[in-house]
Amino acid sequence: MKIHVVKIGGNLINDQELLSSSLKAFCQLKGNKILIHGGGKKANLISDQMGISTKLIQGRRVTDKNILDVVVMTYAGLINKKIVAKLQSYDCNALGLCGADGNCVKSYFRKKTKTNIIDYGYVGDLNRKSSVNTSLIKWILKKNIVPVLCPITHDGKGYLLNTNADTIAAYIAISLTNFVGVKVELHFCFEKKGVLRNIHDSESYLQKIDFRLFQKIKKNNSIKNGMIPKLENAFFALKNGVSKVSIGLPYYLNDVNNKTILCL
Amino acid sequence: MKIHVVKIGGNLINDQELLSSSLKAFCQLKGNKILIHGGGKKANLISDQMGISTKLIQGRRVTDKNILDVVVMTYAGLINKKIVAKLQSYDCNALGLCGADGNCVKSYFRKKTKTNIIDYGYVGDLNRKSSVNTSLIKWILKKNIVPVLCPITHDGKGYLLNTNADTIAAYIAISLTNFVGVKVELHFCFEKKGVLRNIHDSESYLQKIDFRLFQKIKKNNSIKNGMIPKLENAFFALKNGVSKVSIGLPYYLNDVNNKTILCL
Repeated sequence: MKIHVVKIGGNLINDQELLSSSLKAFCQLKGNKILIHGGGKKANLISDQMGISTKLIQGRRVTDKNILDVVVMTYAGLINKKIVAKLQSYDCNALGLCGADGNCVKSYFRKKTKTNIIDYGYVGDLNRKSSVNTSLIKWILKKNIVPVLCPITHDGKGYLLNTNADTIAAYIAISLTNFVGVKVELHFCFEKKGVLRNIHDSESYLQKIDFRLFQKIKKNNSIKNGMIPKLENAFFALKNGVSKVSIGLPYYLNDVNNKTILCL
Repeated sequence: MKIHVVKIGGNLINDQELLSSSLKAFCQLKGNKILIHGGGKKANLISDQMGISTKLIQGRRVTDKNILDVVVMTYAGLINKKIVAKLQSYDCNALGLCGADGNCVKSYFRKKTKTNIIDYGYVGDLNRKSSVNTSLIKWILKKNIVPVLCPITHDGKGYLLNTNADTIAAYIAISLTNFVGVKVELHFCFEKKGVLRNIHDSESYLQKIDFRLFQKIKKNNSIKNGMIPKLENAFFALKNGVSKVSIGLPYYLNDVNNKTILCL
């Protein structure tokens, strides 16, 4: 049995037309599938509109109490429910979840370390062994329902926490590899064809990246910012039993070409 | 088997302390239970903060596209997920749902009639026979998971719709009476002891209201505004198989006294 774990993010979330066509492409995937979505820029727009200022440290949003409310509203409310309603209209029986729902993704407040002394606020990190409630996800899939997860988790003590969507996707994919006879494929979809060699040339995507090449392009600065943790999540998934990881446009989900394939 | 369908609304939603104590009382209920929450005043506060003006016609919110976004964010996002996270911290395995999730509550755009020519916008009404996906609700309850519904439904064509929470509670309660051997109790909880004889005297709640008394107090204006549709939903539920309907504080959910009991 194959399970597709698909993450959609970036401008696919912001633009309604792109979102619709991405979701239609997702619906074409046969078999069991799970969707994880990011937040796009909508949370920033809403916090601006509400007069709440956002703070970024090293490219990461610092989530204070007000920002947490905004991201919960935006990710678990607006974006998640719009996606679910759209999928339902395409005859895909979707069910939206944040990590607190059925206790499906539990996290813990990000810890300060010697090298990381920033207080990120209401930000949750995951534990590979205990965060994902795999039996719940499996129970939902068995009913032919498609789980649609937003990047909000909970700590089990009543706190909702802002969590990276790529990380949630990777951890869910890994957790599902525990089942005998299951092959899990993880797809990171965004508005580009893949990991670009040259950020200014949208056609310059790399067809294949192995771990050695990743280390090299990370070192020589050909890839930056958000792409580094995305690739780290991708290789983490491959190293932990996920059979295939790809990065690219949602329209080639079923295709073996036209995207970046990661391999160890 | 008994199923409790509990609606919480009014100030119980706005005030964090009242919300926590209400949810603790809800957790004490034994057996299968479902929670439906209203939106309180939070959506108004957020739309004010975002500079979006709300419009009321005959006490009903007119839901244009911007207001729809606000209510989806607030009800399905902020309020629903905070409630679910709190319930999880009280060891109650809750799962938040809007009507689009698993297609659990389907609605249709409110129709204009000869007597009602107002265009309410993105407002959904329910159909007694087809709106509630009873088999989904039953499947969730069977897993000992507590469904927590917000007052957002969908039309199956991709639209999310704003729907009255009391009505959702009544229709869900009715739909569950279809199962042999199941007794359904419906509880409308808010910050008052029950239906007040005199709105200025919080102790003046009526212990019992039968349909004849309801007609009488409706006619002589002792009850007004939101209480009339609430009681209409209550009697509609009783007439359609729900075995018991009460209105009052959440702390007396398990009690036979200290609230208003409705009977035919």
